[in-house]
Amino acid sequence: MIKNIDHLGIAVRSLDEAISYYEQALGLSCNGREEVPSQKVRTAFFTAGDVHLELLEPTSADSPIAKFLEKHGEGLHHVAFATDDITEQLQKASKAGCRLLQETPLEGAGGKLTAFLHPKSTHGVLTEFCSMKTRNETESIPK
Amino acid sequence: MIKNIDHLGIAVRSLDEAISYYEQALGLSCNGREEVPSQKVRTAFFTAGDVHLELLEPTSADSPIAKFLEKHGEGLHHVAFATDDITEQLQKASKAGCRLLQETPLEGAGGKLTAFLHPKSTHGVLTEFCSMKTRNETESIPK
Repeated sequence: MIKNIDHLGIAVRSLDEAISYYEQALGLSCNGREEVPSQKVRTAFFTAGDVHLELLEPTSADSPIAKFLEKHGEGLHHVAFATDDITEQLQKASKAGCRLLQETPLEGAGGKLTAFLHPKSTHGVLTEFCSMKTRNETESIPK
Repeated sequence: MIKNIDHLGIAVRSLDEAISYYEQALGLSCNGREEVPSQKVRTAFFTAGDVHLELLEPTSADSPIAKFLEKHGEGLHHVAFATDDITEQLQKASKAGCRLLQETPLEGAGGKLTAFLHPKSTHGVLTEFCSMKTRNETESIPK
């Protein structure tokens, strides 16, 4: 079951310039930065209520975010829904005809499991599910 | 000050088909539908945690949503931040160099005041502020 929106991913060309915008124009505080080599991005985090905003700057030309920027320009990239059972959530989406970008959830930062649905099967919204790992999932999913 | 994300606006070609996706693939329940003649859209609402998802289907070819669909296809359209003082929030954004689509907040559904920032001045994210009306604002803003 979907519990809430965990975060919004936002593609930007320059993390420094975008951080300055979110701080000065919106009055939000940056919670931290992180580089994610596997995704070829640098990220910066903000919080609004219980939703995180995740700014994403590509670190190389073949980063998925670089390709997004080339095609669409800066802007909203994905929505991540927190779920209490990511496997059940993926099964439900698959049964409803969604194209899964991962059949098995990937291990993400902070002990989370994540998986994406292709936007062509979700009315244009790149959709992520994420959940905290359970003991069984920790044992069965390769690191 | 920004309190939380009030809603995400999502542009869709067919409200019926998108409602079916959000219900069947995500397991969310539709809270209701509404037609907004001033924006030339039909909307349907879902809730995830304390954030609303607002699906937007154009009712005519000159609707802003029809133009968005023509240019970008279906997908994430805008993010609305709830603020306790929309006038102060707009002043802060303007001072930081943002282009305001409304100098004065508009009266929206459910007794709310709303105003948008142009995405060219917000790193590509069409950004809405919304707040509940105060007594003074109710008196000074034309209906």
